[in-house]
Amino acid sequence: MFMTSVIGHFIHGEHVSRGERTAAVFNPATGLAEKKVRLADKATVEEAIASAEKAYPAWRNTPPLKRARVMSRLKQLLEENADTICAMITAEHGKVLNDALGELQRGIENVEYASYAPELLKGEHSKNVGPAIDSWSEFQPLGVTAGITPFNFPAMVPLWMWPMAVACGNTFVLKPSERDPSASIFIAELALQAGLPPGVLNVVNGDKESVDTLLADPRVQAVSFVGSTPIAQYVYATGTAHGKRVQALGGAKNHAVVMPDADINNAVNALMGAAYGSCGERCMAVPLVVAIGDATAEAVIAGLKAEIAKMKVGPGTDTGNDMGPLVTREHFEKVKGYVDIGVAEGATLLVDGRTLDVRDANGERSNGYFLGPCLFDNVKPGMRIYQEEIFGPVLGVVRVASLEEAMNLINAHEYGNGTCIFTRDGEAARHFCDNILVGMVGVNVPLPVPVAYHSFGGWKRSLFGDLHAYGPDAVRFYTRRKTITQRWPASNDPGRAMFSFPSSR
Amino acid sequence: MFMTSVIGHFIHGEHVSRGERTAAVFNPATGLAEKKVRLADKATVEEAIASAEKAYPAWRNTPPLKRARVMSRLKQLLEENADTICAMITAEHGKVLNDALGELQRGIENVEYASYAPELLKGEHSKNVGPAIDSWSEFQPLGVTAGITPFNFPAMVPLWMWPMAVACGNTFVLKPSERDPSASIFIAELALQAGLPPGVLNVVNGDKESVDTLLADPRVQAVSFVGSTPIAQYVYATGTAHGKRVQALGGAKNHAVVMPDADINNAVNALMGAAYGSCGERCMAVPLVVAIGDATAEAVIAGLKAEIAKMKVGPGTDTGNDMGPLVTREHFEKVKGYVDIGVAEGATLLVDGRTLDVRDANGERSNGYFLGPCLFDNVKPGMRIYQEEIFGPVLGVVRVASLEEAMNLINAHEYGNGTCIFTRDGEAARHFCDNILVGMVGVNVPLPVPVAYHSFGGWKRSLFGDLHAYGPDAVRFYTRRKTITQRWPASNDPGRAMFSFPSSR
Amino acid sequence: MFMTSVIGHFIHGEHVSRGERTAAVFNPATGLAEKKVRLADKATVEEAIASAEKAYPAWRNTPPLKRARVMSRLKQLLEENADTICAMITAEHGKVLNDALGELQRGIENVEYASYAPELLKGEHSKNVGPAIDSWSEFQPLGVTAGITPFNFPAMVPLWMWPMAVACGNTFVLKPSERDPSASIFIAELALQAGLPPGVLNVVNGDKESVDTLLADPRVQAVSFVGSTPIAQYVYATGTAHGKRVQALGGAKNHAVVMPDADINNAVNALMGAAYGSCGERCMAVPLVVAIGDATAEAVIAGLKAEIAKMKVGPGTDTGNDMGPLVTREHFEKVKGYVDIGVAEGATLLVDGRTLDVRDANGERSNGYFLGPCLFDNVKPGMRIYQEEIFGPVLGVVRVASLEEAMNLINAHEYGNGTCIFTRDGEAARHFCDNILVGMVGVNVPLPVPVAYHSFGGWKRSLFGDLHAYGPDAVRFYTRRKTITQRWPASNDPGRAMFSFPSSR
Amino acid sequence: MFMTSVIGHFIHGEHVSRGERTAAVFNPATGLAEKKVRLADKATVEEAIASAEKAYPAWRNTPPLKRARVMSRLKQLLEENADTICAMITAEHGKVLNDALGELQRGIENVEYASYAPELLKGEHSKNVGPAIDSWSEFQPLGVTAGITPFNFPAMVPLWMWPMAVACGNTFVLKPSERDPSASIFIAELALQAGLPPGVLNVVNGDKESVDTLLADPRVQAVSFVGSTPIAQYVYATGTAHGKRVQALGGAKNHAVVMPDADINNAVNALMGAAYGSCGERCMAVPLVVAIGDATAEAVIAGLKAEIAKMKVGPGTDTGNDMGPLVTREHFEKVKGYVDIGVAEGATLLVDGRTLDVRDANGERSNGYFLGPCLFDNVKPGMRIYQEEIFGPVLGVVRVASLEEAMNLINAHEYGNGTCIFTRDGEAARHFCDNILVGMVGVNVPLPVPVAYHSFGGWKRSLFGDLHAYGPDAVRFYTRRKTITQRWPASNDPGRAMFSFPSSR
Repeated sequence: MFMTSVIGHFIHGEHVSRGERTAAVFNPATGLAEKKVRLADKATVEEAIASAEKAYPAWRNTPPLKRARVMSRLKQLLEENADTICAMITAEHGKVLNDALGELQRGIENVEYASYAPELLKGEHSKNVGPAIDSWSEFQPLGVTAGITPFNFPAMVPLWMWPMAVACGNTFVLKPSERDPSASIFIAELALQAGLPPGVLNVVNGDKESVDTLLADPRVQAVSFVGSTPIAQYVYATGTAHGKRVQALGGAKNHAVVMPDADINNAVNALMGAAYGSCGERCMAVPLVVAIGDATAEAVIAGLKAEIAKMKVGPGTDTGNDMGPLVTREHFEKVKGYVDIGVAEGATLLVDGRTLDVRDANGERSNGYFLGPCLFDNVKPGMRIYQEEIFGPVLGVVRVASLEEAMNLINAHEYGNGTCIFTRDGEAARHFCDNILVGMVGVNVPLPVPVAYHSFGGWKRSLFGDLHAYGPDAVRFYTRRKTITQRWPASNDPGRAMFSFPSSR
Repeated sequence: MFMTSVIGHFIHGEHVSRGERTAAVFNPATGLAEKKVRLADKATVEEAIASAEKAYPAWRNTPPLKRARVMSRLKQLLEENADTICAMITAEHGKVLNDALGELQRGIENVEYASYAPELLKGEHSKNVGPAIDSWSEFQPLGVTAGITPFNFPAMVPLWMWPMAVACGNTFVLKPSERDPSASIFIAELALQAGLPPGVLNVVNGDKESVDTLLADPRVQAVSFVGSTPIAQYVYATGTAHGKRVQALGGAKNHAVVMPDADINNAVNALMGAAYGSCGERCMAVPLVVAIGDATAEAVIAGLKAEIAKMKVGPGTDTGNDMGPLVTREHFEKVKGYVDIGVAEGATLLVDGRTLDVRDANGERSNGYFLGPCLFDNVKPGMRIYQEEIFGPVLGVVRVASLEEAMNLINAHEYGNGTCIFTRDGEAARHFCDNILVGMVGVNVPLPVPVAYHSFGGWKRSLFGDLHAYGPDAVRFYTRRKTITQRWPASNDPGRAMFSFPSSR
Repeated sequence: MFMTSVIGHFIHGEHVSRGERTAAVFNPATGLAEKKVRLADKATVEEAIASAEKAYPAWRNTPPLKRARVMSRLKQLLEENADTICAMITAEHGKVLNDALGELQRGIENVEYASYAPELLKGEHSKNVGPAIDSWSEFQPLGVTAGITPFNFPAMVPLWMWPMAVACGNTFVLKPSERDPSASIFIAELALQAGLPPGVLNVVNGDKESVDTLLADPRVQAVSFVGSTPIAQYVYATGTAHGKRVQALGGAKNHAVVMPDADINNAVNALMGAAYGSCGERCMAVPLVVAIGDATAEAVIAGLKAEIAKMKVGPGTDTGNDMGPLVTREHFEKVKGYVDIGVAEGATLLVDGRTLDVRDANGERSNGYFLGPCLFDNVKPGMRIYQEEIFGPVLGVVRVASLEEAMNLINAHEYGNGTCIFTRDGEAARHFCDNILVGMVGVNVPLPVPVAYHSFGGWKRSLFGDLHAYGPDAVRFYTRRKTITQRWPASNDPGRAMFSFPSSR
Repeated sequence: MFMTSVIGHFIHGEHVSRGERTAAVFNPATGLAEKKVRLADKATVEEAIASAEKAYPAWRNTPPLKRARVMSRLKQLLEENADTICAMITAEHGKVLNDALGELQRGIENVEYASYAPELLKGEHSKNVGPAIDSWSEFQPLGVTAGITPFNFPAMVPLWMWPMAVACGNTFVLKPSERDPSASIFIAELALQAGLPPGVLNVVNGDKESVDTLLADPRVQAVSFVGSTPIAQYVYATGTAHGKRVQALGGAKNHAVVMPDADINNAVNALMGAAYGSCGERCMAVPLVVAIGDATAEAVIAGLKAEIAKMKVGPGTDTGNDMGPLVTREHFEKVKGYVDIGVAEGATLLVDGRTLDVRDANGERSNGYFLGPCLFDNVKPGMRIYQEEIFGPVLGVVRVASLEEAMNLINAHEYGNGTCIFTRDGEAARHFCDNILVGMVGVNVPLPVPVAYHSFGGWKRSLFGDLHAYGPDAVRFYTRRKTITQRWPASNDPGRAMFSFPSSR
């Protein structure tokens, strides 16, 4: 097997490569290990932290407007280099190129929001909190902060984190997924080019050793994490046990409710992308449709089957494809196994993607990790394919009699990341939005990912912490409040000793 | 020993008393155990949690304006019952009555802020995040929340927590200090009278068993804590390990910097109250003065000695006294021990409060836990009386040569709760405020406790978590962000399947 | 005719009465002139302005929290004196007592909002707008401000204005309607009792002479007005020509759109109160129903006729009545005249309230200004009863074929105060809200008066000025922004002459 | 005299030139009329308004994020074309090139702020304003808006206005000063290139006929103006008489207070640029120094004289010059006349710039409008050179005994645009900032022009209207608040007729 390159780290503005352990980086469309990535040992991570610590004082004192302008320039560089970045994503993650572009664009929107820093960092000023006493708040940076990101959005999720962190005046150590590390390194280079001083953003590739180092090192003030729920919980518990602030986003099992009054064509089209886009490897994907009434279920299923029949699956480099391969062989096997389990559990497999036959350019059966779209009917609570996050192109239809029954299901589920309802009815929409225990809710919007100027976060076991990712919450997460109370006594006013607690009496 | 009463719990609007363990509640001014308090076992705490859970749905759906008005009425009842509450505080904590009134008034200000709930709970609405797509955020309550509060502000600190929590739509279980539990129970009765439905606020008295039950119970969504740093860290690590959001405020060692240009009379008067008010049993007390230059030190010391000579120490029920007893015999011994240590460490004891002789009404030496004001000169970093939180009427003077040296000391200290600077110079003040690693900073204000419409919180090991107590941060801590994205498609618009990630392209 | 009392002015905390012109104040339910009101001459108004000017400096320097607390106490006093105030309103305006209570309660909500002043007056603080340069905004009071209010809400509309003005630190001269002046004077007394210093709020009764004095006096910084559009325009043009800031709210002709999918019972019930409550003498009343389709029109009309048949009209002191008299004989004649006009214009008069026969206690025909509810069908644009504000219990049904046609009508109308739509359809509601040129929009809410923590204001010729009444906009209207840019140069930094314009380069 | 070009208008994305009246555009450094500008007649202005009206609906419906991105691209184009723009400014206004760059950079910062539109346009969302009733505010654009700008900042002041207006969804007609119109036309071309659709921004050159057309045309919803106070007042009164919203910024006479404790070198250097930069043709220039005490006055004067002696005056194209010519011959004569008046009034002319001899490349005496820096001592209130805005390089020193006396002078002056204080003393600074009746205050900052994310505006006769220019206030000025109250009744809930006014009872 021929390795074209070895991906290292990016520390203090330079590529760093050492004799550390490595892991193969596969192209999921070919099954070939085309690159290697170095897995940082503790010393390398500490070097990155030290770099961030060194860069902090000057960056902290750089006016917010100047920091924001680096983000503006980065936005422009990301747009100019979009093709390169998308090619990296597709080569390592497998998703179709224009899906990669969608992801990148969302990431750019987060960079854009970070460029509003002068507005976002305003504190509150109160005149005369007492006679001639003023008080105000400042939102000061924390110091060195860190992010740990998953394989499924190799460009977007890192861009949820570090642009806001550095716009707020922090420095950052990013540990992206070792499955698809190239985009993060490349974007770090662009950031340098945009004017980010060396050390403000460092990227280390690695595995648990890196993660544990970041969680334990006392110089790291805050950790943002996106991944699966068990790891999210581990990161939250471990980081906080070390006294840090942590926000850890975990798994999901998003339900889409289809009401009888919904426009079925519209709902079906929306569900297709939400279920099968990026092979369902999105924490906002919709793997479950909850149809209210059998007639609704039948209509939705008929529509889905017709649309699935039109889908094209193949390498992500071909933008005519709707879906590329799964990310790794292990993940392919796991997802395929869930289809087997669903059948065994008694769900009705209407479309079986396990038999998909993708050919490569030579007409040979591809070694890529391709799984066709799968559709189950009669999925029921209690089944593993209902309870667990599959993260693959497997959509299940759950039939219920009423909106209340649908909402009870959703509210009883372990996860509360996203959900949506398809309806024309204002009352149903409002009732659903108000009472559903889910953090991100769509009304006729299948993937209700908040725009960059709002914040992203689920409820229940989909998020640990109190502040959501990006948007306004990120400003608060990446800053420490300082409150100043100021009085300028007249030059000849001795005051008097006040032993009682000061108040507005 | 005669027990006048046994203090129980307040659950679902009723006094609850069971055959649990009890602890004595002492009057620090007499040393007599005048009351007992029940220490809740796990079952009692769970009953309180169940009460809060039961009360939640109706309270959550009560419009914010109605919830706010309960707070307005409570404010009024607290004002009307101030004498009763202050008498309870003084009888159990020992502080002088007008100091108790200062504390209560600050607590009332927090209730007042909670009465602004309709303004504070506004979400952000964005029109046209995409074509005809709108998005907005709602700040929904969490459910059952809990607070664990310290002995030193038996009225104020609980009022930092639960009024904001319930104004946001949550229900609450409060576990106040078992040293001085009466005020919390009484205020809970007033809240009921003000219109708070039974179960919205529950009070359980107890010890570690109560704390651990609150930290582990899955129905409790969030925990606010104020106490010492080791316990704060325990609460933070344990609560987060159970997946909760936690804010845990710990200890302090607040430095007051006196610049050569400061008005010394003014600074001395300010320091007297900050050092000795409430026997220094305040997390915002000033136990360390950092004098810039020996001349400043000499002048400050001369002033302090003159003022200390005028101080009156005795029972808190006599409002002519400046200082009452310490809270318990154990604490008295501990603080006295620190004075011994300081002498042993080589600091210069200028005023020795250990020899104080307080007489009771019969002219007998009081059994109360009275310690006179103590003043050390030549306190130095490395000494235990410099590093550790004493929480008593012990003020130490540290001499340094420059503001930079003073700031380096403060920034190197474990704690970062409060600090202040006395100066007339704008540059010094701004430089200090900007660069000091402390959460609450006073300029010529000795106790820079933020007003109720700002938030309270320290840095470093004085606070674990990302949001501060009360004020705007409390709104965010006691609510969960929900983001809704809404589109109303035209009735005949089928849309089309979009497999790429949605973005603003 | 026996006059029970002469209503004067309230200046600097005292009742002021002089030999000025007077006007009779009638009881609309009896037609008797039961009181007189003095009409201030220029000197009296100037005395009130002088009083406000004198009270300003001390009030301006009173911390916002203290000012806010006066509002809290006033809220309580208003609640305690609600019966007295409502009796005054009913005796002079005529509306039914519980309608008066509804109005008062809304006014109290504005007082409540003013009590949030410490939160509302926060400025924005920016650290490091340049290196070591900070900048922040303060919202300082204006000085003497004034309000001119209409007869239809004698308690509520004044409470829209002066509580926010004084909470912001201004002093105020109120000129209420001379038709029903008692409530304003009485509430001013309560404000004094609540702790508002003398001179902070002054009330002068009067007519055009008073208005012109307020508009011309250079000490008056800002004028808020609510009344008819011609006078609003006069006030706006005149006040601004004198260099003042002015917000002037004028007339309305609010359309309610009923969609075919609406729940007709629900819509009819909503429309009844909106059309006939307070005799339609509300700027948010609904005098026009736009029914989409003839079937909808027929159903709505059938419902309205049935409900009208149940209505009771009589003195407002009898809370069993649904509607009281019109405010004056002149207004009664004018409204009745519009019914005549409508008939002449060709609209179909379905219910004729002109023939109403109200008897007094003695069984005699009442001399009160009672007009029964009137209902027209086939009202069309171009008719005077369509175009002009009638301000009486006259409801017209307009029939159109589509929502677009309805919206075109509304958007073409001179006024743009309020409107509402009855539907179950989310798309219709969103389309209507987005594109209608009206300031306050209800979805299934017939009187979409914004709550006190939002702001009130129409579009087009319903409001002159850029800021709406009460709520957040009132804070901005009653304050002047001051922006401070601060730098504390190092003591030995001479700087250098910079002849170029300073910027972030 | 040779005319190189005739400057026309820019309407609907195209250069428009007609047979209208023209005016000469002079190069102030040579006195030559190098260009002509067309002065639009009413029809041309109406064409521009019509263009803006036509472009409005589509632009209004363009999502804020898309509108914001046009601003981002424009920012970049302005940076890339800075040299061209600055050359235009210097050729027509006369200021030195790097001063032009400073101005342009400030303008770019306003474009940058406009690019934050998605954040700035957020409304407030309130859940449950009543049971199951929600309410929110939207900030919708106005339609066609207009701006009228002065000669002294031909790039910056237009950029204060239209970028925010269009970012908010409005379309715009700009009438720049006919003295230096080129930059506005050129920047409009860049905006088109950046993606602003034709008609969203139109530029008409003209004089009073243009102004009056804009003020009277009913399609124009709002007018922003910057110029002299008499014209500002005319624009305010006329525009409002036509029912529009207007903000009109007028003249200034900014005082700089120098306290005895100020670092005199630092203050002198700061004053030099503030007094003589751009020949004092800035509404934030400092033409008056108020020295506290004679010693301060002497020191300041000594410093100023020394610095003035080093100043170089000559063509703005030579960046070695500190000051260029005045803008026109008429203005040159007027300023020179003020120096004569000052001498006649008894002020002491310490430095006389009237005798300045500037030579052109050929060694000939320049025909440019060059006036040297002038310095008066003993300027006193009552003198015309104290009261009136000179707008030239004439600095006067006023001697007073105390800060109070200085503040009384400032507060008594007609204007209240900007002011500053030089001191090291926190108390003096705070007292000054709090009590001075001026809108923009500097502490050791000579030109306290607020940064783009705050707002610009004076007090007293320096600004007519209630909202300041650019920054947060501009969002509110260029939008109309719409408040929506929404309820989705249960499908079988008929409600009931409520004749009383709806409230929270």
